[in-house]
Amino acid sequence: MTSNDFASEARFHADLRRFLHEHEKVARGEGLTPRQYVLLLQIGATENATVSGLVDLLALTQSTVTELVQRAERAGLVARRPSSTDARVAHLSLTNEGQARLDRVFERLQGERDRLRSVASIGPG
Amino acid sequence: MTSNDFASEARFHADLRRFLHEHEKVARGEGLTPRQYVLLLQIGATENATVSGLVDLLALTQSTVTELVQRAERAGLVARRPSSTDARVAHLSLTNEGQARLDRVFERLQGERDRLRSVASIGPG
Repeated sequence: MTSNDFASEARFHADLRRFLHEHEKVARGEGLTPRQYVLLLQIGATENATVSGLVDLLALTQSTVTELVQRAERAGLVARRPSSTDARVAHLSLTNEGQARLDRVFERLQGERDRLRSVASIGPG
Repeated sequence: MTSNDFASEARFHADLRRFLHEHEKVARGEGLTPRQYVLLLQIGATENATVSGLVDLLALTQSTVTELVQRAERAGLVARRPSSTDARVAHLSLTNEGQARLDRVFERLQGERDRLRSVASIGPG
């Protein structure tokens, strides 16, 4: 490897840190923690989302997802309804409020995503 | 935006988290904190690196960089020599040990960088 590889790798880490910082700032501006934002993203993306499905998709533990979902429910961002085919399973969906906040954060992060993607694609090979 | 945008964005965040986790694990396996790794990357990439140059390049505060450099010096990873043109300025470079550890972490993270880059380039537009 060359010092040039190191330079783009260092820049990539600086950009990653800026992206995560910006992501946290924008999410908190809508009253969401960074994890709540990712939770809402995944619920918004998944038809008939369940806690155990989210555990796989988000690579978090069952207890973390359970707690995240409960907090999001109490905050009025996520609704839960029993599955019609299995009473032990609850399906999760976004409330109107959850959808609106998710949309706003997602849109406000568009510029950061573009920036990070262009850095990632020209980073060291 | 569609639920498909949300899905790739959620996956992107999960991959980002995995990348940072792996990066921390590999760096610590060589006795480096994640920040020390980025510091060594940048010093390895920069001819005649200085503390104030690193402040700009790493987007960290002066006091954070000063402390990081001092710790890396004490750990035998970074050497400091006075500038020949300005006695108030010190130039920083990697010691052999610092270079060797940087090379090992950088190489062991190659797979993770490739994975993250492929996710970033196919993420939501």
